[in-house]
Amino acid sequence: MTTLGVGLIGYAFMGAAHSQAWRSAPRFFDLPLNPAMSVLCGRDKNAVEQAAGKLGWDSVETDWREVLTRDDVQIVDVCTPGDTHAEIAIAALEAGKHVLCEKPLANTVAEAEVMAAAAAKASAQGVRSMVGFTYRRVPAIALARQLVAEGKLGTIRHVRAQYLQDWIVDPEAPLSWRLQKERAGSGALGDIGAHIVDLAQYITGDRIRQVSGQLETFVKERPIPTEHSGLAGTAGTERGPVTVDDAAIFLARFGSGALGVFEATRFATGRKNAIRIEINGSEGSLAFDFEDMNLLHYYDAGDSSQLAGFRRILATEAEHPYVAAWWPPGHLLGYEHGFTHQVVDLVTAIAENRDPLPSFADGLQVQRVLAAVEESSATRQWQEIAL
Amino acid sequence: MTTLGVGLIGYAFMGAAHSQAWRSAPRFFDLPLNPAMSVLCGRDKNAVEQAAGKLGWDSVETDWREVLTRDDVQIVDVCTPGDTHAEIAIAALEAGKHVLCEKPLANTVAEAEVMAAAAAKASAQGVRSMVGFTYRRVPAIALARQLVAEGKLGTIRHVRAQYLQDWIVDPEAPLSWRLQKERAGSGALGDIGAHIVDLAQYITGDRIRQVSGQLETFVKERPIPTEHSGLAGTAGTERGPVTVDDAAIFLARFGSGALGVFEATRFATGRKNAIRIEINGSEGSLAFDFEDMNLLHYYDAGDSSQLAGFRRILATEAEHPYVAAWWPPGHLLGYEHGFTHQVVDLVTAIAENRDPLPSFADGLQVQRVLAAVEESSATRQWQEIAL
Amino acid sequence: MTTLGVGLIGYAFMGAAHSQAWRSAPRFFDLPLNPAMSVLCGRDKNAVEQAAGKLGWDSVETDWREVLTRDDVQIVDVCTPGDTHAEIAIAALEAGKHVLCEKPLANTVAEAEVMAAAAAKASAQGVRSMVGFTYRRVPAIALARQLVAEGKLGTIRHVRAQYLQDWIVDPEAPLSWRLQKERAGSGALGDIGAHIVDLAQYITGDRIRQVSGQLETFVKERPIPTEHSGLAGTAGTERGPVTVDDAAIFLARFGSGALGVFEATRFATGRKNAIRIEINGSEGSLAFDFEDMNLLHYYDAGDSSQLAGFRRILATEAEHPYVAAWWPPGHLLGYEHGFTHQVVDLVTAIAENRDPLPSFADGLQVQRVLAAVEESSATRQWQEIAL
Amino acid sequence: MTTLGVGLIGYAFMGAAHSQAWRSAPRFFDLPLNPAMSVLCGRDKNAVEQAAGKLGWDSVETDWREVLTRDDVQIVDVCTPGDTHAEIAIAALEAGKHVLCEKPLANTVAEAEVMAAAAAKASAQGVRSMVGFTYRRVPAIALARQLVAEGKLGTIRHVRAQYLQDWIVDPEAPLSWRLQKERAGSGALGDIGAHIVDLAQYITGDRIRQVSGQLETFVKERPIPTEHSGLAGTAGTERGPVTVDDAAIFLARFGSGALGVFEATRFATGRKNAIRIEINGSEGSLAFDFEDMNLLHYYDAGDSSQLAGFRRILATEAEHPYVAAWWPPGHLLGYEHGFTHQVVDLVTAIAENRDPLPSFADGLQVQRVLAAVEESSATRQWQEIAL
Repeated sequence: MTTLGVGLIGYAFMGAAHSQAWRSAPRFFDLPLNPAMSVLCGRDKNAVEQAAGKLGWDSVETDWREVLTRDDVQIVDVCTPGDTHAEIAIAALEAGKHVLCEKPLANTVAEAEVMAAAAAKASAQGVRSMVGFTYRRVPAIALARQLVAEGKLGTIRHVRAQYLQDWIVDPEAPLSWRLQKERAGSGALGDIGAHIVDLAQYITGDRIRQVSGQLETFVKERPIPTEHSGLAGTAGTERGPVTVDDAAIFLARFGSGALGVFEATRFATGRKNAIRIEINGSEGSLAFDFEDMNLLHYYDAGDSSQLAGFRRILATEAEHPYVAAWWPPGHLLGYEHGFTHQVVDLVTAIAENRDPLPSFADGLQVQRVLAAVEESSATRQWQEIAL
Repeated sequence: MTTLGVGLIGYAFMGAAHSQAWRSAPRFFDLPLNPAMSVLCGRDKNAVEQAAGKLGWDSVETDWREVLTRDDVQIVDVCTPGDTHAEIAIAALEAGKHVLCEKPLANTVAEAEVMAAAAAKASAQGVRSMVGFTYRRVPAIALARQLVAEGKLGTIRHVRAQYLQDWIVDPEAPLSWRLQKERAGSGALGDIGAHIVDLAQYITGDRIRQVSGQLETFVKERPIPTEHSGLAGTAGTERGPVTVDDAAIFLARFGSGALGVFEATRFATGRKNAIRIEINGSEGSLAFDFEDMNLLHYYDAGDSSQLAGFRRILATEAEHPYVAAWWPPGHLLGYEHGFTHQVVDLVTAIAENRDPLPSFADGLQVQRVLAAVEESSATRQWQEIAL
Repeated sequence: MTTLGVGLIGYAFMGAAHSQAWRSAPRFFDLPLNPAMSVLCGRDKNAVEQAAGKLGWDSVETDWREVLTRDDVQIVDVCTPGDTHAEIAIAALEAGKHVLCEKPLANTVAEAEVMAAAAAKASAQGVRSMVGFTYRRVPAIALARQLVAEGKLGTIRHVRAQYLQDWIVDPEAPLSWRLQKERAGSGALGDIGAHIVDLAQYITGDRIRQVSGQLETFVKERPIPTEHSGLAGTAGTERGPVTVDDAAIFLARFGSGALGVFEATRFATGRKNAIRIEINGSEGSLAFDFEDMNLLHYYDAGDSSQLAGFRRILATEAEHPYVAAWWPPGHLLGYEHGFTHQVVDLVTAIAENRDPLPSFADGLQVQRVLAAVEESSATRQWQEIAL
Repeated sequence: MTTLGVGLIGYAFMGAAHSQAWRSAPRFFDLPLNPAMSVLCGRDKNAVEQAAGKLGWDSVETDWREVLTRDDVQIVDVCTPGDTHAEIAIAALEAGKHVLCEKPLANTVAEAEVMAAAAAKASAQGVRSMVGFTYRRVPAIALARQLVAEGKLGTIRHVRAQYLQDWIVDPEAPLSWRLQKERAGSGALGDIGAHIVDLAQYITGDRIRQVSGQLETFVKERPIPTEHSGLAGTAGTERGPVTVDDAAIFLARFGSGALGVFEATRFATGRKNAIRIEINGSEGSLAFDFEDMNLLHYYDAGDSSQLAGFRRILATEAEHPYVAAWWPPGHLLGYEHGFTHQVVDLVTAIAENRDPLPSFADGLQVQRVLAAVEESSATRQWQEIAL
């Protein structure tokens, strides 16, 4: 079987998740190509060498440009912060490497547009690209998409989606890079709001056309970290301004006319990673919460009044997407499995010479929705999403 | 419409619930006879007069024998402690009064046998009797019975039932009359275990034939109350022995061969009135918890693997038992509604000249199961239930 | 004890709920005044006489003006459609009668303003008025208010509230009066959106100052009913336009800066009466769903990371609002109990010579929020709520 | 770092789970020794070679005795059916290899006794052994143990535990080896009942001393499989007797006096892998369900009546057992993570020269409980568990 060498750029949280996926996918799934964990890339040589040992990569590079020149690399997996995505991904595509790029695709629509254009051009040469909205690969979510595609919900009327976290509720939590616009591009909106926009569009098979939104930064200043250890660093005594949103809420109108209500926040005390999505259609409804990620709740309006009720579907049957490769019914999957499924889908598409989904164009469209929310928050009016 | 005069004996917790039922039933349901709240009976004249005013009864008596002589009383509703049930109920039946008797039917099997015989004799004269297992009248429970009767569960394999409370977890809770065998007959077993035995048999339409049980009194001595105010009184400094069980657990074998597991306890810290019953059959399953009493969970094994899941049926549709008389879908009913439904069923049976259910014979059979559990706890062996 | 005669105008769904409340309140609570169910009023003499018999009222009137002249009426309870509230309530107040008026207070802000002015004037004469937002009286909701008032949530950051129903999902459901603007004033927004606006403001103790909303009528035409039986009538072959909203969604900004997301719809397939409200503050969070109305979920951010979690509080303890009058812990209350508690609060306020809450001014303010949502839906911009 | 070579015997379901654990543990945890996936062993050379490639093992053997002679093997991981455990594990220990043995430890108490004796003898030589009750390593379960050990539950009163599956509800499901006593030793009792016995004893830190049980085989005959593909094979036309239990229920008495109720069944229609355990103590309670394996529900009786409620603890905080090595809060773990944690605990114990838990003696004691249940089912009496 042909080997598919992978070069991973970045080795923090996402790097660890991607590494586990590259390692696990061939152990559970019958892949048409054999991924090799060729090279891990990071700027700090000592650190990247230590990470490569830990995460199981064969070699290291300290300059991502070097990764693009290597013959043992066919896929470049971009897990760096958003402000570097465009440069790396475009160069990789131009070097003929398939690209898997973490979300958000870029920090700006302009960058994302260039990336999408590069992806389209590369595709013509058989070079593939994909953006990492992994939650699509949670079996319960993929099942939700299936049910909608099969028409089980009829005409979609409502989408309500929330991504709720609480990690900066404390006003003394330090001013990490994620709270600085120049680094992170945006706050809750881009970081987690992007996921629920993608999920809502993916499951419904529809696109958001208009939004009215509001961003908010509840805590305007935070202690500047003195030392950058871990996710957030340690708070110092000086304070600096928070330049991204703590929370974003918005209304949406889909192409079909369905109404959407979205909320992304880091201030939902007690909610750790609650991705909730509920969809009501003329024939049925669906509900999902990532804090219970193996479950999909499904209501079939065709059931009799006597017996109708939301069905608690434990999406661990062999008939459910991705599940046959894993464990018997009732043996739950976790967060990281979505990344493994992403590898499966990407490698399969490459082997079959077709473009995987979600594409960079999909990533760009999500970016446009987020930009429209931001614009709407400023203008206090509804904004259209350019097609 | 003919009036049906009611005489209620007892005015504590159950008296209040029954009063609300007699008052409410004709306001929501179309009854074939018109219940009149004729007389409330209690030994303390001042107290019973005050209660009658509060609960809405037209007159009072201080001797229950007087109630039986009154022409304006056609139904005697017995809400006294269990050690007085037999005497009152039998005398009432002999006086030609229909009888509604609270559970447990009696404190002993012997008493219950005499009562059942009296009920059978009275029935031949058109005098009706009924034992007050009101939980049968919770719509979700009545729906459960319907589904089993319609064959939706196939062959029943398992019943697991628990009645969990925690009101005497504190070892300093006083030694109330409910903890004394001579008054209460039994502890958790008779008080709450009786309900889950009845529910299990009612829903399955089957009978328990054998049991292996264990009773336990975790706290052997408690402070003797100095003053009997309210349910439990106030703890004094002297201590006396607890002579009933704090908890009862037992295995059961049903006539059909189904296996049962039962647990009744007042020591389930944090569970207030959790009546849980779960039934697994070859074609489907049911689950119920009184702490969420408007819900019935139903699994249909005939659904496809892709879409099967326990359905959360909100038993508030007009198609559900008793519900059409009340509110629109989604507007919940509460604890007391079961008592109102009991009145409806009793009055309807009387008007239609047929014996209502559950009968005294049903109450006797439950008593036999409880006695067998007690016997089994002593002999450390399985016990048969006499038919 | 002084008697307080009640005259109830209207005898449909709300009339039945109010009747049960007037009947039950004195049976469970120690009221300072004794409500008498004096007169039921409706235009159709036969129908109102039948209803009075069923619901337990002493007499009937067919003209509400007559009710206002009766000496045996001290309270006028207005349960008619919204377009008649203003005229009846104002006349009643001017006649010196206390008024309980169902929500929404009126169909327009203009009417509501006149009503609030009339209420203020009446108050100076010791005549009381109250608007019927009964969900405030669900114990779990009243507990939520208590916790916020005690500061247990700290600074409120987020409110997300939904009122979800599904009774007109079917496009062939007939064009009932509730779907006609001239009768109902508004659709989901006024009928059920009003409740979540009130609840959100009540629990937080804060007011909505700005909104951005969107109304939608998914099904534009429906069959005109040929016969008005029941809630909706029977569909005929002719069709007419639906002139109210099927669903309303809106963003909100509270006075404190908190963000709100609201959704009221009759198209949430499978949700029957799901009033959900979730509030996140800097110190804790709360969550409630009316489909599980005896529960309040509470997260205390002060708990250790090891042990923190949303607490499932079963609001049936004697320590919880209104509960001591009812049943032991774990014995659930239902929908109608909120109406009984409303009677208790109203009668108590009258006896204590103070204005009960929520006042007509509160009702007017809710109306202003709803009007701003409607305005915003038309202008496609945020709207301020006049103070 | 010293390498610790692993030889895995067996490559079916458990073999796949163990392989993923050996592969993943060093990637997320800082292990004191470096496990090497040296050799996979199975009788069929082609099949084991294919499995080794798939699962990532360096070499293969077809005779387990060969594994014991290899210098690159320091741990023998036994994942074969129960009837071979004793022979392999004892030989491995005698060969100086550490042993990880899947549960149940053996098919009979007699075998388990010899194994425990061998383990004790080996321990004196510094050779370690461990039995694979992996559910102990689910973070929520390990947290439960912690809370009990810290005294947060006070005196334990009740344990109720269920292991519910439904994979042979269909009477036409074939007669697989798991339904034959000579191969499987026992049915639901040994296969899944063993887990809840271990969990109940582990979490409480107590031992079961007496049991009264009942085994049942609901479907006495099943089609003999014609072809052994997968777990169960394909049903043929001939039938053979099922010689193990389909379900086992039993009461238990713990050393402390606590009462236990246990149920293990393969006939709980709709329950796929529901391991439920609920523990009530004088100071608090715990509840867990594997179908929601990241949650632990905890009730603190010390909370005020107003605020007390079961806390839904999402056991994904860095403060929870094992979690710090994985993902941020709210990012769920799955079934296989327990196996990874098992590797961590085993490797750590080996490095630290101490015996890991659960020991073979623990496995033996579980076996004795199961044997007593079986004995009790035959004698219809309570049975004592030998210490």
